Amino acid sequence: MVKVGIAGGSGYGGAELLHILLRHPEAQIRWVSAERNAGKAVADVYPHLKGFLNLTFSSIQDLPGRDLDVLFLGLPHGQAMKLVPGLPAGLRVIDLSGDFRLADPQVFEEYYGFAPEATEIQKDFVYGLPEINRESIRSARRVANPGCFATATILALYPLYRAGWIKGPVFVDAKTGSSGAGNSPTAGTHHPRRTNSLFPYKPFRHQHLPEIRQALGGDEADRRNHLVFQTYSAPFVRGIFSSHYMEIETPKDSDEVRELYMKYYGRDRFIRWVGATPDVNFVRHSNFVDLGAACDGPYLVVWSALDNLQKGAAGQAIQNMNLMFGFPEETGLELAPVHP
Amino acid sequence: MVKVGIAGGSGYGGAELLHILLRHPEAQIRWVSAERNAGKAVADVYPHLKGFLNLTFSSIQDLPGRDLDVLFLGLPHGQAMKLVPGLPAGLRVIDLSGDFRLADPQVFEEYYGFAPEATEIQKDFVYGLPEINRESIRSARRVANPGCFATATILALYPLYRAGWIKGPVFVDAKTGSSGAGNSPTAGTHHPRRTNSLFPYKPFRHQHLPEIRQALGGDEADRRNHLVFQTYSAPFVRGIFSSHYMEIETPKDSDEVRELYMKYYGRDRFIRWVGATPDVNFVRHSNFVDLGAACDGPYLVVWSALDNLQKGAAGQAIQNMNLMFGFPEETGLELAPVHP
Amino acid sequence: MVKVGIAGGSGYGGAELLHILLRHPEAQIRWVSAERNAGKAVADVYPHLKGFLNLTFSSIQDLPGRDLDVLFLGLPHGQAMKLVPGLPAGLRVIDLSGDFRLADPQVFEEYYGFAPEATEIQKDFVYGLPEINRESIRSARRVANPGCFATATILALYPLYRAGWIKGPVFVDAKTGSSGAGNSPTAGTHHPRRTNSLFPYKPFRHQHLPEIRQALGGDEADRRNHLVFQTYSAPFVRGIFSSHYMEIETPKDSDEVRELYMKYYGRDRFIRWVGATPDVNFVRHSNFVDLGAACDGPYLVVWSALDNLQKGAAGQAIQNMNLMFGFPEETGLELAPVHP
Amino acid sequence: MVKVGIAGGSGYGGAELLHILLRHPEAQIRWVSAERNAGKAVADVYPHLKGFLNLTFSSIQDLPGRDLDVLFLGLPHGQAMKLVPGLPAGLRVIDLSGDFRLADPQVFEEYYGFAPEATEIQKDFVYGLPEINRESIRSARRVANPGCFATATILALYPLYRAGWIKGPVFVDAKTGSSGAGNSPTAGTHHPRRTNSLFPYKPFRHQHLPEIRQALGGDEADRRNHLVFQTYSAPFVRGIFSSHYMEIETPKDSDEVRELYMKYYGRDRFIRWVGATPDVNFVRHSNFVDLGAACDGPYLVVWSALDNLQKGAAGQAIQNMNLMFGFPEETGLELAPVHP
Repeated sequence: MVKVGIAGGSGYGGAELLHILLRHPEAQIRWVSAERNAGKAVADVYPHLKGFLNLTFSSIQDLPGRDLDVLFLGLPHGQAMKLVPGLPAGLRVIDLSGDFRLADPQVFEEYYGFAPEATEIQKDFVYGLPEINRESIRSARRVANPGCFATATILALYPLYRAGWIKGPVFVDAKTGSSGAGNSPTAGTHHPRRTNSLFPYKPFRHQHLPEIRQALGGDEADRRNHLVFQTYSAPFVRGIFSSHYMEIETPKDSDEVRELYMKYYGRDRFIRWVGATPDVNFVRHSNFVDLGAACDGPYLVVWSALDNLQKGAAGQAIQNMNLMFGFPEETGLELAPVHP
Repeated sequence: MVKVGIAGGSGYGGAELLHILLRHPEAQIRWVSAERNAGKAVADVYPHLKGFLNLTFSSIQDLPGRDLDVLFLGLPHGQAMKLVPGLPAGLRVIDLSGDFRLADPQVFEEYYGFAPEATEIQKDFVYGLPEINRESIRSARRVANPGCFATATILALYPLYRAGWIKGPVFVDAKTGSSGAGNSPTAGTHHPRRTNSLFPYKPFRHQHLPEIRQALGGDEADRRNHLVFQTYSAPFVRGIFSSHYMEIETPKDSDEVRELYMKYYGRDRFIRWVGATPDVNFVRHSNFVDLGAACDGPYLVVWSALDNLQKGAAGQAIQNMNLMFGFPEETGLELAPVHP
Repeated sequence: MVKVGIAGGSGYGGAELLHILLRHPEAQIRWVSAERNAGKAVADVYPHLKGFLNLTFSSIQDLPGRDLDVLFLGLPHGQAMKLVPGLPAGLRVIDLSGDFRLADPQVFEEYYGFAPEATEIQKDFVYGLPEINRESIRSARRVANPGCFATATILALYPLYRAGWIKGPVFVDAKTGSSGAGNSPTAGTHHPRRTNSLFPYKPFRHQHLPEIRQALGGDEADRRNHLVFQTYSAPFVRGIFSSHYMEIETPKDSDEVRELYMKYYGRDRFIRWVGATPDVNFVRHSNFVDLGAACDGPYLVVWSALDNLQKGAAGQAIQNMNLMFGFPEETGLELAPVHP
Repeated sequence: MVKVGIAGGSGYGGAELLHILLRHPEAQIRWVSAERNAGKAVADVYPHLKGFLNLTFSSIQDLPGRDLDVLFLGLPHGQAMKLVPGLPAGLRVIDLSGDFRLADPQVFEEYYGFAPEATEIQKDFVYGLPEINRESIRSARRVANPGCFATATILALYPLYRAGWIKGPVFVDAKTGSSGAGNSPTAGTHHPRRTNSLFPYKPFRHQHLPEIRQALGGDEADRRNHLVFQTYSAPFVRGIFSSHYMEIETPKDSDEVRELYMKYYGRDRFIRWVGATPDVNFVRHSNFVDLGAACDGPYLVVWSALDNLQKGAAGQAIQNMNLMFGFPEETGLELAPVHP
């Protein structure tokens, strides 16, 4: 049994990690911290977990000396970079924040608004998107778990960038549910305001943009096919739904598009090709990404739908853990999406 | 034109007052304060009002010397009682808080958690529920505007208490939309938590209970028919839907029930008898209260549905203003509910 | 492995059965019918199940000759009573409809609007509420699975009726989510109408009322403590939230109330006592019933919250199957509720 | 007083017309038809209007001989083209369907799936988008009221097409609320399915596309800047939110973009420039279109948000009526959007 610790376990990502780990046959939750809730029972903070866990939230101060095989970090941006340098070398780390995703510290500072620390260990982190990076993850000791928007857009565009189909820029219209903002109430997640709304935020500057560019080929690829990335708040609770618009060099029909994606993802358990019928509603509470597309002559739209707390965060983190420890990739993640 | 001021205008009640006053033919908004937003344009705080108002939020400090005929108070509980004693005697006041609703200071302290001030002027305030108190309001200089739950329950029960139909206790199951909690984000109005939820709060102790008891006949009436009052948070944005259960002395059919209510409310513009089909959905953005009932032998349920920001707050406050200034009661409030 | 068939598998109850059975280690889905969708792949009707099932919906005509150990019936009211008499005696049956829940055919006709058939075999059916009926279910060959409202209210009131605490009538205010209406669109589940609404339906006459009365002690118990039962449509998707109001003979404090419930349900895996904090949000997608209560002198409210498609339908049906086949009761139902 | 008739008044567009006309000082509702609801009181079909209207729905058969100045047509596509040829020449007509919007009958057939009738009178219809077509509407006897998506996208793109700023194609990502599907329940508006969903429909082929192309300059303009148009269903009730992505010939800053729009719409009462903060939530229940934009070098996104039943249907129809009869354009439409 893998001995698991979670630092920053009282956010939605932490709660989702707990939910998945409870049913994971090869892992055991041994320690979980939450600064504001230190000393409280997990089930008091998350009433849905009552009866499932006898854990109490610790403080991060209590981490040293814990007997753990892997530590998940669900901390706010900027904290993992302070914590990781002091961790034992043998402790595997899966960081759900943006701290170690970007190779270029200047780009980090531009998008996160502060200079990164511990930049010398960034190269120890493998970008944890199994569908494009599986072998590196298997041998990694430290993994930077991708952002939710990044997962949706990289998986939607990777085959197209690799195949060189695109002509000119790509425009991304990416909508997130309210749980993506975390469990601290804000003006944008206030129920009376969010329920009947749809609005853009962070125009062209969401912090997930640079990790998408990096994964799709960096500056060189972006010069060929510039990525224009716009995020929106939508009034559902769970999910990312991203639309990717572009012109392509040679018109394709829908079978050819599907074949391209099957070539890259045909053996990936968590990717489903759904043609013209993607919907965040059909991936909820699962680790699946539903991909689809429609063509109109040389114009193409590719859609991706995922659950932001599963494939967009905790589910993918467990998928990475499974790879790192040699378990079947889908262990603990076999559940079908729920509906209604 | 009545010169109107609003102290505490950046909450939902204040915004609703502004919305109604904008279309009121006899009133003019002259001053509006909001401490946290002082100096900001109203339309920057409330983007839906962009293009309708050139007002800037003042501080309450700027009130002295303003030329106003009536002042609406949309302040948090406990502030009106500090402010009102210093106001000019000639300035009419309509207070939307609970500060001056209760005649008994001990009851106030029990339910609000702190001792009231300015108790000597409480008797200057008329309880502003026009359907049961119209004549007193007409001549009042100061009005305590009822609570949203109180309006729903008093109007549902008043004819029954007056007619002496009820046998034993009355059980009230009262559900509120999320806007009832105001425009400050809280755990209970966080979109991911509220959207799929229904939960009780303040078991049997909501602060609107004593004003309901007072309006229905006080301790004596309550000894005959004890009111058991329970509030719930529901996942709609606007509305109060209250169900009132009881046994009655003599079984009645639905026509007899309707007739009783028509006797009391038959000429009230804002009360509609809707039999078995009340719904918060059909009173939204209007000052109407839809009342209905169903009978089963000696058992009776009476339902009331209203918009908590209109008849439950700002709409009723304007209705009171109309009475105080001799305008037709429905002035500025003539709009039909909206749907869908 | 138990060989499972489902007749009427394209409704929400059927889809939920499939979802649970997919992760059930002792059961295998062998056959599923759906008249309107006969010939279609299950995953085309339920896109969330794509990749999990290779089944095609059959017609009920194809049932004879199937090698099955248990048949779940998810058919509209009135169809199971036509089908069951012709089934092989050795085939276990779990009926999710109301056809075989009521012992008295006159009561059935009064509430369902048509005369029942096959009344001679009604006595073969055990009422499948494990928490009050576990031993009978273990040895049953045929089980009538309770209604969603019935499960919520019986579990909330059973200890009180048994203990004889209640004085006078009990008033039930029961709210259901939109999925309770099934997957056929109707006026009451039309999104523009349902989203901001709360409204009563079937005043005092919901068809689940007689099965509640029957389970709580029948006419004799009802004469002592008459049950007044009112249902509402609420704007969440999943869940039943029921409030039960009453006077009790002797005032109790909250510990005494909890102890009473613990006495009856202390060893029931799927019942959680949550005091003053029940919420449909914290039982979603699980088989749990959260029970709580509040007291005010001799007045008591008891709350129950459950997921109408799990403990209110398919989850409870699987719980019954587990008992009938000697599996641990929670097999396949171990998942914690999801949140957010 | 203008004598108004409505054919097809029981849909959401018809109900919204009634709601606006009730407060219109220059118009009087004289006749309203609804085939399925003929003989029913309007308030029985639309309970929110109880107490406001004593009208009963007629059948379209009863139209001849009515003394009307203007007839609004809220009929399904294909019915206005059968009805209009038989109407008196002096009766002004405002058609909310797509029947008379398109000049080219072949294009109509391609997008609507059937051949149009009465094509010889199509040229009598003026396309009723006041902000680009005001003078023609003033003198029109017949107006084809634009589609909801069309209004959002034409207003967002018209200045850019006219100014010749755009380089290459324009990609439109257009989201609609559930009320856009009308008041007949369907699978896509079933509450359990719609509430947590976001999904594309009619890939690149929505029937509003050709009227957008026609308004923006027809085939010639489309050859220069091809419009790629994709529609989505979102889980709010009211609203269209459209995002328009493009490359522009010369990079502009946000002031230059705003100035371009002010040049075209600076005196239009119902257009508000809101920069980076458009939201369907802030135009609800009003006739406003909120426009905004963001730039990133040569890339531009323009947003439009409107209420699909107001500026997207009934509100715009009244705006057209006002122009046709010489009333101030905003008569009856002066209400500010509502929030929350």
